[in-house]
Amino acid sequence: MLLCRFDANRLGLVEGDRVRDVTPALAILPAHTYPLPSFDPLIANLDAVQRCIRDLLPGAPSVPLKDVSLLSPVASPGKIVAAPVNYLKHLDEARGDAQIHHRNQVGEIQRVGLFLKATSSLVGPAAGVALKHPDRRNDHEAEVVVVIGRRGRDIPAARAHEYIAGYCVGLDMTTRGPEERSLRKSIDTYSVLGPWMATPDEVPDPANLDFWLTVNGQPRQRANTRDLVLGIPELIELASSFYTLHPGDLLYTGTPEGVGPVEAGDVIDVEVAGVGRMTVAVRQAQAGDPA
Amino acid sequence: MLLCRFDANRLGLVEGDRVRDVTPALAILPAHTYPLPSFDPLIANLDAVQRCIRDLLPGAPSVPLKDVSLLSPVASPGKIVAAPVNYLKHLDEARGDAQIHHRNQVGEIQRVGLFLKATSSLVGPAAGVALKHPDRRNDHEAEVVVVIGRRGRDIPAARAHEYIAGYCVGLDMTTRGPEERSLRKSIDTYSVLGPWMATPDEVPDPANLDFWLTVNGQPRQRANTRDLVLGIPELIELASSFYTLHPGDLLYTGTPEGVGPVEAGDVIDVEVAGVGRMTVAVRQAQAGDPA
Repeated sequence: MLLCRFDANRLGLVEGDRVRDVTPALAILPAHTYPLPSFDPLIANLDAVQRCIRDLLPGAPSVPLKDVSLLSPVASPGKIVAAPVNYLKHLDEARGDAQIHHRNQVGEIQRVGLFLKATSSLVGPAAGVALKHPDRRNDHEAEVVVVIGRRGRDIPAARAHEYIAGYCVGLDMTTRGPEERSLRKSIDTYSVLGPWMATPDEVPDPANLDFWLTVNGQPRQRANTRDLVLGIPELIELASSFYTLHPGDLLYTGTPEGVGPVEAGDVIDVEVAGVGRMTVAVRQAQAGDPA
Repeated sequence: MLLCRFDANRLGLVEGDRVRDVTPALAILPAHTYPLPSFDPLIANLDAVQRCIRDLLPGAPSVPLKDVSLLSPVASPGKIVAAPVNYLKHLDEARGDAQIHHRNQVGEIQRVGLFLKATSSLVGPAAGVALKHPDRRNDHEAEVVVVIGRRGRDIPAARAHEYIAGYCVGLDMTTRGPEERSLRKSIDTYSVLGPWMATPDEVPDPANLDFWLTVNGQPRQRANTRDLVLGIPELIELASSFYTLHPGDLLYTGTPEGVGPVEAGDVIDVEVAGVGRMTVAVRQAQAGDPA
């Protein structure tokens, strides 16, 4: 299934260029009292929601995809884990460009490990990216994103596939500067997730996914997940050797070479073959932006 | 008020060496349906909860503090923000000790900015710390922690006090190694928060708080928040210049000199004068630990 969230927290099943509105399936999710759970309720109950969607489909209304506003397909991740410099050619480019490395060491992922992005930075494609520090370089970073489906710790790479709920297209927006990644990459709207979540049956070989990014139609990044330094199973093993993963946790798997600056008015397109394509408009942040 | 959470998600008001059980005050918190909010419901409704506590107090049962298990006073922070090297003597110590810096650059906070800790690493004092990588050095870092009370972005330092719900004692446990802080400091149980939250009326001068840490009764760290490089208002200004702060977000303000390793069997005590003291036992992580 290709599952999207759209408009005012509606749930949709994407079929070609249309969305079937299956919002009533959300009614099976429990209400939560304090204290809140540390997982995303939709992802934690994904099997039951999918069964409900199948029952609803015969009568589900259909709307054109072009008429809906796409939200982040995961609403409430407990954490956003991200892989730095996980394509060798991006490592080379980062080390060669002072505008990227800012006199910080740029280590390979085996040394640097993983970083976190604030969950408050997460938006869907329709929200767009609001540039916060326009005096700095703000770069696009196209990524394949894994959605964790089950709670787990110390997950061996060989069993990592059992812990995956689906795959999304991600944009890890990055303000360049000397600070730690977990600050520079956590600005509001700097983690874009979309256009929907493709469940694993839609993605026969996640280790062989072509993906690409354009800015105003001009090609900027193009790669394939076969060139990941640490593949998806190894990233899940590494992350879960430090902390417990929960349903809805996101894993941004790293960006390839070709990162570069964007400015207000630019339009970014990112597509992962077999998963989907999202369009993200870039604007200047304003004091009145929703928080 | 000194507000604690204890045993099976009970709410308490600390009075001397006793806890008044005011759990019925939680009944005013709303139930939440999907999607979950990005804030902690107790902190977001703190004024109303405090009014309810005052009404309940005449009939609230009292139990000895020593008989309760203390949970993290904030249950569901949206993010845990932390300040690296925010005391000059700790910066000196980190630069001078290869076991701390691991050939990484150790920059001053004005350059490095802030980092994130995974919310899945948060526990209360009773849970204790479970060492995950015993082949590495695992250090105690005593900190004063600020609980954010209101949503805000671009908060000037002069108004930062309006955004504070309270103060806690924190332990920012740290596995040494070459990886980014947001990985090494996010291991399950590596963010201890306790023993309760002191509301601002209990803390007349947060810029002049003595605090100290002992291991097995031996003094290891002692400092005062007047020696913070970036004080609490400046940290809130810095954080909110990158991302929106939400009620319940935690700000670990940084550790002073004297950090050092702990081992399974050690007992850590951390006290912030006028806020409280918490005792934290250190053990080896086991495969069967709760996640």
